[in-house]
Amino acid sequence: MSQSHVLIVGSVALDSVQTPSGKAERALGGAATYSSVAASFFAPVRIVGVVGEDFPAEHLAFLKSRGIDTEGLQIVRGGKTFHWAGTYEGDMNQANTLATELNVFSDFRPELPESYKSSEFVFLANIDPELQLKVLDQVTNAKLTAMDTMNFWIAGKPDKLREVMSRVDVVFINDAELRQLTGEANLVRAAAQVRALGPSYVIVKKGEHGAVMYCTPPVPPLCKGGKEASAPFDEGGKGVSTSFGEGGIGGLCFAAASYPLEEVIDPTGAGDTFAGGFMGYIASTGELTHDNLRRAVVYGSTLASFNVQDFSLNRLKRLTKAEIAERYEEFKRIVFFEETDAR
Amino acid sequence: MSQSHVLIVGSVALDSVQTPSGKAERALGGAATYSSVAASFFAPVRIVGVVGEDFPAEHLAFLKSRGIDTEGLQIVRGGKTFHWAGTYEGDMNQANTLATELNVFSDFRPELPESYKSSEFVFLANIDPELQLKVLDQVTNAKLTAMDTMNFWIAGKPDKLREVMSRVDVVFINDAELRQLTGEANLVRAAAQVRALGPSYVIVKKGEHGAVMYCTPPVPPLCKGGKEASAPFDEGGKGVSTSFGEGGIGGLCFAAASYPLEEVIDPTGAGDTFAGGFMGYIASTGELTHDNLRRAVVYGSTLASFNVQDFSLNRLKRLTKAEIAERYEEFKRIVFFEETDAR
Repeated sequence: MSQSHVLIVGSVALDSVQTPSGKAERALGGAATYSSVAASFFAPVRIVGVVGEDFPAEHLAFLKSRGIDTEGLQIVRGGKTFHWAGTYEGDMNQANTLATELNVFSDFRPELPESYKSSEFVFLANIDPELQLKVLDQVTNAKLTAMDTMNFWIAGKPDKLREVMSRVDVVFINDAELRQLTGEANLVRAAAQVRALGPSYVIVKKGEHGAVMYCTPPVPPLCKGGKEASAPFDEGGKGVSTSFGEGGIGGLCFAAASYPLEEVIDPTGAGDTFAGGFMGYIASTGELTHDNLRRAVVYGSTLASFNVQDFSLNRLKRLTKAEIAERYEEFKRIVFFEETDAR
Repeated sequence: MSQSHVLIVGSVALDSVQTPSGKAERALGGAATYSSVAASFFAPVRIVGVVGEDFPAEHLAFLKSRGIDTEGLQIVRGGKTFHWAGTYEGDMNQANTLATELNVFSDFRPELPESYKSSEFVFLANIDPELQLKVLDQVTNAKLTAMDTMNFWIAGKPDKLREVMSRVDVVFINDAELRQLTGEANLVRAAAQVRALGPSYVIVKKGEHGAVMYCTPPVPPLCKGGKEASAPFDEGGKGVSTSFGEGGIGGLCFAAASYPLEEVIDPTGAGDTFAGGFMGYIASTGELTHDNLRRAVVYGSTLASFNVQDFSLNRLKRLTKAEIAERYEEFKRIVFFEETDAR
């Protein structure tokens, strides 16, 4: 059996970022870039995006070196690549945008190459929800679909955004955005509102406070994007608590700590890296069980924790599988509180 | 061997609280009250505080019904009990104080009854750090000492507060207060600053985001308050990772999730309840290992999660040990991410 692919659609950009630790000028960035590179540590990735003729060849070479299929990355002759400039201060949970030059991205219409359409794992990174819908219309064989978004679309296209949420299996959203979208301060109730739209999983990214996954009981109806997966939550009930089934914990099925970092160099792309690591790990295992989704959250957190330790994708460029495995084990040691065989 | 006692010193109050869920008028409150009642689910408690003649007899009877020794609770004839009034809004992480009437509390000088002085577990709830120091001067046999504080003392008596921190084993503090005290936005670095003052453990309470425990590697020098405990961290190394010893995770040794609640009725006393549950559990086991301190954090979180589900101590009044045990198990299910025997 051939390996499952992760299809990722979103922005590929050049970022100018300033943080208390320093700055990066027109460095490689973009939601699809971060998530594709993160996913590539686990599974083969197909990227869909657009860049201008100014996009440095070294970046393209880097993506290819990670085994990322770039057939779907359009290069617009004479065009300029999407450029974002921003700063971070204080607890660095929120970026201050200085400039957004959409350039070639403003006319972006995601067209999937034929070879991409049967991808089994689909991640719609943060882009216009109308474009996310167009991508969903093109995939034919998805086992798991996921999306991310940002405050700009919540404010500007909330109805289209809700339509996307109703058509995917997993919604990634940060805590501030979740409150903005729902008008609800309590995160458990806010997540329940999003789950009511249809997604089986709502994964709330909380930066330094970790991530929380909410599930729709009793058995999440996965696989909206395509054919049914085989009995995703029926593996002898191992690890699946009955109180999840009853929605007994406010629909919350997993809380992950964040990795403690004494210094966050650049938080740009942390959420994208998280989602990419999550999707890559799921694709590599093909297993849509609660337990595997928990592990995927921790792998996503692991990748994100590395990413913020340097500007742009610099840390991911030198990241090794051994480092990922080591930090994953550290996550266990941080959160476990009983002597168990796993320790 | 007789059971270890928890000595708790702090405010006993009448609180008037308004939240989006309703209000309570002159209901039982106070840091020492919440923490004593929480601790009483695990171990015998001795309380030190002061109330006025207006303090309702039913409250005194309730404390006694929980097995709390009230010999150290002074009743000032003709005096009025400390009264606090406040409101909570939005995410309810921060109280807005409307009134603080210290009354008899303004002349409070904690005098330990003779029978209290040999208490092995000592919790200095939020009071004037100078009074906390006076209590430490009176205890003779402490195995574990802990303190809590608030923004008022951080602003008003930071030097005395640091002196208390240097003399206890465990510092409880919330994330906003930790940032205020240290002027450091990064919580890992901020906690390191507090650990540098001397306490073996800094436990950061983060409300809806759970709690994080930082440890001073390699072997925390516990038992400042009295005699040495026997080899507290030398139990075959079970569960104690070498990377803790190297301080490899920024000194963080445990991250606990918060229990997901769809409705927080009244957050008053959550931090006190957390600390009381922690101290009570430690006292009940007498075990000063990393693993036991982790469990204590989860028991503290468990008690706190119940407390916020009703006004005043109303939820704790009807809480059962079976409910505590059940929710503790739910905490496991929320955070574990590998199939283990413990599941």
